Amino acid sequence: MARFLGYIAMSVDARIADSNQGVEWLDRHAPGDADMGYPEFYGGIDALVMGRTTYDFVAAQPEWPYPGKMSYVVTSRPLTSERDDVTAVEPDFARLRDRVDADGRKNVWIVGGGQTQRAALDAGMFDELRVFVLPVVLGSGPLIFADGAQAGAKLTGHKVWPGGVVELIYAFEG
Amino acid sequence: MARFLGYIAMSVDARIADSNQGVEWLDRHAPGDADMGYPEFYGGIDALVMGRTTYDFVAAQPEWPYPGKMSYVVTSRPLTSERDDVTAVEPDFARLRDRVDADGRKNVWIVGGGQTQRAALDAGMFDELRVFVLPVVLGSGPLIFADGAQAGAKLTGHKVWPGGVVELIYAFEG
Repeated sequence: MARFLGYIAMSVDARIADSNQGVEWLDRHAPGDADMGYPEFYGGIDALVMGRTTYDFVAAQPEWPYPGKMSYVVTSRPLTSERDDVTAVEPDFARLRDRVDADGRKNVWIVGGGQTQRAALDAGMFDELRVFVLPVVLGSGPLIFADGAQAGAKLTGHKVWPGGVVELIYAFEG
Repeated sequence: MARFLGYIAMSVDARIADSNQGVEWLDRHAPGDADMGYPEFYGGIDALVMGRTTYDFVAAQPEWPYPGKMSYVVTSRPLTSERDDVTAVEPDFARLRDRVDADGRKNVWIVGGGQTQRAALDAGMFDELRVFVLPVVLGSGPLIFADGAQAGAKLTGHKVWPGGVVELIYAFEG
């Protein structure tokens, strides 16, 4: 069975983007010389799950940042991509889990955003969540988890990175 | 000039209460045997600032938890209290600051909630904010800061408490 991993930055007030879905604040409030363990994390995953808003944002960038690893895009709208490492899936996380297993994926990054992280949480699909708390209050923008039910977690680790970024690592109960 | 201090618990998704303004989750997700530095913190403050919702919640408890320290309650509605350590103030934080200084207060706890913390933040009144991140996603309820402008911060300390509670200490810029 695949492991599902979260790895995401948020503000002190748990926003993962500003009110325009922008992420420029990430550069402004995280130092460029700390890699936050990303190369090692990214090297260890073999597939990604992302919501449609996240996909559209990423796909609009000059370069696709996840070449060679299958990106499962959760969407109920038609999606056309020339890439063979992008595939649209219905917003049904039980089926998504089966699909990922059938495809032989081992370590899957739940990239975001908040709606997708919420759906994954509700489906009990988070094996590990790494949250990087940046030293800024954003004041608006989507939260790390969209509104929904409570979910207890267990702190399994933490690390303080340069620039005052605090990484918190959680496993979820049940 | 008085110092203004924040000391508050929140969930991973930055909620400070559940959707019914309840705080039972605090007991459920924080261990009873860790004092989180509260006795020392509380011993060091000589006044409190709280919003009307927080006041009403606290005043409805069997016992007033802050006897002998002046509580400034930010409200535009009439407030009657038999206590001589409770005083209503207009929601004007520049005047509040003057008042607190005129009263000779030195260390003032901005108790909450999110609207009051936002107003204090906008007024540049946070000298230090201590946030205790509890290992739970609440999914609904008010945020640590109500919607508003961005504010950069500086991580000045952190501590991991029993039960997976992580304390983050911030100073705010400008």
